[in-house]
Order: sequence, then structure tokens, then C-alpha cells
Amino acid sequence: MKKIILAPDSFKGTMSSQKICEIMEKVVKLHFNNATILKIPVADGGEGTVDCFLNASGGKIIEIPVKGPIFNSIHSFYGILADGKTAVIEMAAAAGLPLAGHEMDPAITTTYGVGQLIKHAIDTGCKKIILGLGGSCTNDGGAGMAAALGIRFLDQYGREFIPTGGTLNEITRIDISQKHKGIDHCVFEVICDVNNPLFGKDGAAYVFAPQKGANPDMVHVLDKNLMYFSELLIRDMGLDISMVPGAGAAGGLGAGAMAFLGAELKPGIEIILNALDFDTLLNKTDFIITGEGRIDNQSLRGKVILGIARRAKPKKIPVFAIAGDIDEGIEDIYQQGITAILSTNRAAIPFHESRKRCENDLALTVDTLMRILKLYR
Amino acid sequence: MKKIILAPDSFKGTMSSQKICEIMEKVVKLHFNNATILKIPVADGGEGTVDCFLNASGGKIIEIPVKGPIFNSIHSFYGILADGKTAVIEMAAAAGLPLAGHEMDPAITTTYGVGQLIKHAIDTGCKKIILGLGGSCTNDGGAGMAAALGIRFLDQYGREFIPTGGTLNEITRIDISQKHKGIDHCVFEVICDVNNPLFGKDGAAYVFAPQKGANPDMVHVLDKNLMYFSELLIRDMGLDISMVPGAGAAGGLGAGAMAFLGAELKPGIEIILNALDFDTLLNKTDFIITGEGRIDNQSLRGKVILGIARRAKPKKIPVFAIAGDIDEGIEDIYQQGITAILSTNRAAIPFHESRKRCENDLALTVDTLMRILKLYR
Repeated sequence: MKKIILAPDSFKGTMSSQKICEIMEKVVKLHFNNATILKIPVADGGEGTVDCFLNASGGKIIEIPVKGPIFNSIHSFYGILADGKTAVIEMAAAAGLPLAGHEMDPAITTTYGVGQLIKHAIDTGCKKIILGLGGSCTNDGGAGMAAALGIRFLDQYGREFIPTGGTLNEITRIDISQKHKGIDHCVFEVICDVNNPLFGKDGAAYVFAPQKGANPDMVHVLDKNLMYFSELLIRDMGLDISMVPGAGAAGGLGAGAMAFLGAELKPGIEIILNALDFDTLLNKTDFIITGEGRIDNQSLRGKVILGIARRAKPKKIPVFAIAGDIDEGIEDIYQQGITAILSTNRAAIPFHESRKRCENDLALTVDTLMRILKLYR
Repeated sequence: MKKIILAPDSFKGTMSSQKICEIMEKVVKLHFNNATILKIPVADGGEGTVDCFLNASGGKIIEIPVKGPIFNSIHSFYGILADGKTAVIEMAAAAGLPLAGHEMDPAITTTYGVGQLIKHAIDTGCKKIILGLGGSCTNDGGAGMAAALGIRFLDQYGREFIPTGGTLNEITRIDISQKHKGIDHCVFEVICDVNNPLFGKDGAAYVFAPQKGANPDMVHVLDKNLMYFSELLIRDMGLDISMVPGAGAAGGLGAGAMAFLGAELKPGIEIILNALDFDTLLNKTDFIITGEGRIDNQSLRGKVILGIARRAKPKKIPVFAIAGDIDEGIEDIYQQGITAILSTNRAAIPFHESRKRCENDLALTVDTLMRILKLYR
């Protein structure tokens, strides 16, 4: 009996990794109807991240009320995996763009609710917390999250407050003396697939704040505030993480997670493969199908297909990658454990047309692969 | 050691079947360097047909002077296959559009030279003659060819003449009493991949004469003349072949070949596979790669990939088809012996862009297939 793993990235702009897994599974079953099929939709940290982990490993959803991004009360959630010790939190569940409603204003939004989710997970006994960054409406450098976990931000009058993107410049001191005790007994892994630094031209404000509702003047202020916040982190905590790739993710929550939680920022693929003990799952696997929207010869950091391939290679398990577009000059990846790459394109038509038929084209591409593989079953 | 057959159709508008074979062979060798590779570029009847057959089976080129399409003297050629008994003639070698030079006028051009090539092949001892239609500059219903083989066309004064597209209406009688004796001892197979009748809206004149230089008035005359010619064939030879699919191929040479040579019109793929004794070649073949520019769910008559698949199926030999575009709704062809179809498209771009990179894309698609197949070698 075959054992087949499906572990695709999302195809940005067309299909979620979950959708892709479903389509792949349906087609694979047509050809290998007795196969054990393991679906691992790879989370990118944004909306759907908790579902991805729960689908792949089992576990449960915890629903709790927290402060929303505009300090309103909302229902939020996180997941606890089957081991009972690992929480998966997507920041978008407490500070996502859709939660900001019409009031798109990254100067006033907070990640406080994210901190509440983390606190709840710690208090429930979780020892490892996986935090997905992505889809945020905030620009507070994670100060809100930190405040919910006991870090105190004091203004010039010594008053404690919860800083937001627009008020980070009002902090005069960061006091970590009352930080939640559980933090230091927890491992924090942050899913972060962007490389932006905290501030500057490539930073959180300049790159992401406009889509969160900031006009050019506000972007300028938000960026200055993040730079100031970074100086405080150096002065009060002795940490300079502003230029670490990913510090600028989710309005600077990347930096905040590093500074206040001691978190490590990693590509989603590494985190999910570790969380699932992928190396053990690989035992007796006949082949793996992975995929992504576009395979190019750019930076290979965090590429789902390579994360999969590198682990499969030592065990000599074939890895088939299915891609929307395949760039030229990608031959190097065959050295890294990818067996073959198939494009979903079946006709010479531009993307605005092909995107409409992407689900069917994906199914037919998997079908083609299965027809070849079953020759040799 | 692997035995691999490469038998693609041309990709209309981008690559000849020979070119495709070369590209495929190069890539296949990278992965199966000891394989025996048999290349069968499938002829479409037009220019290059003789080369296709000679490449696939071996044989020799015979060069002889004949009358060109405007009754000028030209150097022409045909092929005799390795068996020494089978001639392959492309009509374009004696009456092809490029041979008409600037005088593009299908009213005055002749297929006489084609008849001379046939006569030479018969006189040399060939017992089977494969005639490729395609790329003609003529509209003479094959009367010129017939004249070169002893068929006499008489005008109202009883004078013998060589009718052309513009003078078919001057024939009053067809006399076959002096027809070359060898014709009846020869088998004639005509490669014809079009279905046009001899005359009418879908006939030789209306569909093809404009690209041979005819204006609308001339098209009308040419069509009337072919209709008249057809009536003569019925009256003097008792044959009504005007509506047989392919009668209108090559300016009506399809009809002339049926009427004067007793030829059978067939798709190129059937003729080449018979000529090569493909069923025997299939013995011990590990797999076949075929292909065509576009795989659709239209009429399957004469489809190269299906001609290949139908013969491979009883022997359970995998057949991989590589296509430029793959239409929807083609699943039926899997029942007919096609194992899997791969598209050469690797990015969502329109044809005017993809055609520029088609050779490389084809190579990479074959590469993908080889990478999968060699897993199980």
C-alpha cells in the first residue's frame, strides 16, 4: 500500500495550500485508491495558519475573548496541537486587517489581543508557541502584545500605557520586571516569510503601512516611531534586532516577538515540518507532492518545496513539485532533492485567463503525474 | 538497455517534427545515455516529407531534372527507402509554392514534374510510391501529373495538351489507353492530412487558391474548371471522387492521384508507420514519446499521437504525449493508449511570447518526463 505525502505551499493569488491539498488528494485517490495520504498544507503565517496545523497534526481550537485591534472586545481563537503542549496562534486572529473594519489606521491599532492569546496558551500549560505573522493591521512593533504579557511601557510622566504605532514615540522607558513568568519557560517559533527590517525604506512602515491605511505623512511618522522604539530596545533591553530579517513583519511584531519573547523567526515550512516530526512521517513514504505558485531562481530561503526536498533527499524519497510558473535557470534545485517539476499551465494563455481555471489545471497536472507513476506501481 | 521511440508530429507554426526529434533525443540521452533511440519524425506530406522517411528508415535520394510548375526545367528529387522498392515523393519538390517564384498564378501552373518523378520511380523498379501532398502552387486537379504518365487530354480539335488550372475547361476527352503500364503494378499511398473536397466552398480553389495568387474572379473560374474536370472523370473514367475527403488537397492532386493512379489517401502517420513496419519496431520498446502542437477533442482522424497510441496499446508500451496546448475534455484519449500528456507551457504567457522559447520549453518538458521515468529504470 502506498504512502503519499501532499505538502504544497499556497499558490499566491489563486489557491490556499488547503485547497491545493484537497484537489491533489482527490486526484491521487482516483489512481491510488488504497493509498494512505497525508495532507500537510503549509501555513504561511497568515489567516488559516491554525487550520493548517490542526489539519495536519490534529488538536483543538481554543476560543477566547480578547481585545481587538482597535481595543474593542472580539472573539478570537488559537489552536493546541495533539501533543497538548504546542499552541499555534495566528496574529491575524486578534489583529488582522479584516478586524479593523472601516477604521484602517495603523497609528491607533494594537497587537494587545495577540499577547492575550499567548498568555492564555502559557497559562493553559503550553510549552511551545508557534506564532504566525501575516495579514496584520498594526504597526506597533509588538508593544501591544508585550503589554498584555506584563511588559510595562511608561511615558514621560511615568504613567503606564499601551503604545500603538502612533504613540511609540511617547515611551520613555520599558520595564520588563513584571514580564509574565511563563515566557522564559516557553519556546517561541515565529512563522515569518518576509525579510523586511524593522524600519527604513524596506521596513514595516514604508512597505506595509500603506495597505493598512496610512498616507505618506503617516508612513513617515510610523517609520520614525519604529526607529525610536528600536533605540529604546537597545537602551533598555540591550537588544538590537531592528535589522534582523523579518523584524519588520506584521507591523514590527517580528521585532517585538524577538525582543520580548526571545522568539526565533523561521520560514513556515521549517516550523511546520518540525512541529509534525516530518522526518518520522517520511518513513515508508513512497513519494511526496509539493508545489508553489512560482518556482524561480531567486533567494531560496523559506521555499516550501526546498524545505520538503532537503528532508526527503537523505531518505531517497521522490519529491514532485507542481508549480504555476517555472522560471528559467532553476536546474540547481534538482541537486537539492526535487525529482521533477511540472507546471500547471496547459495552454499558452496569460495569467488573467489561466487563474480562472487554476483549480482544474492543477487537478489535471496531478492526474498526469499519477498516470505516469502508476505505470510502475 | 532501454529502447525508446521518438515519434512526434510537427508543432504547427513553431517546430518541424525533425527539429522536435532532435531536441527530444538530446534530452533523453542526458538521462538514458545507453538507450537505443529511434527517431520517427512524422511527415505531413509537405516539404521535408522525403527527409522524414529517409531519416527514419534509411535509403537514398534520387535527383533528376523535371518540368517545374511553370514548365521550366528544374532539378528535383525523390527518395527510395532502404527496401529499394518504396519511393517517397513530395509533390512540393516539383510543384511547390517556392518553385513558382514571383509568378504566383495557379491558372497556369502544372504538376507535370510530379508525374515525371513518379514515372522515374516506377521505371527504376519501385513497387510502392508514397506521395506527399502539401505546399503546392497548382490547381490542375493532377492533370499535369497524369499527362506525364501517358494519360492524354484532348481539346475540341482532338489535339493533345497539358491542362492547367485555367485550361481544364478546354478538355473534351480523357484518353487513358496509353497510360504508363507500370502504374497498375504499383501501390500508391498519398499522404493527405486535409479533408477538402475537389470543388465548392470547401474545395481546392476556394480554400487554397488565394494563397497561391488567385484573385476572387480567378478562384471562381478555377473552381468551375475543377467541377467540369470532375464531370469528365465521371464520364470518361466512371469515377466520382470529387467529394472524397482530400480530393481537393494540393490543387486537386488528391483527386488526380485517386483517379489516375488508383491511390489511397491516408493520414501521414498511418503511411509512415506502415512504411517503417512500426509494429515490428515496437518489439522490446520501453516507451514512446510522441507529441503535437495542440491536443484537442476535435476529429481524431489522422492524429499522430493516436496513430502511435493505438499500435502501442496492444503491446502495453507506455506512450507519453507532449503538446503545446492541451484542450479541455481530452480524457477519452487515455482509453486509446496514451499514458500521459504533458504540456510544454511552463508559464502563464500568451502564444506570441511562448513561441519564442518553444524549443527550450520542449527540452525542459522532456527533461521533466525523463527525471520521473528514470526513478524506475
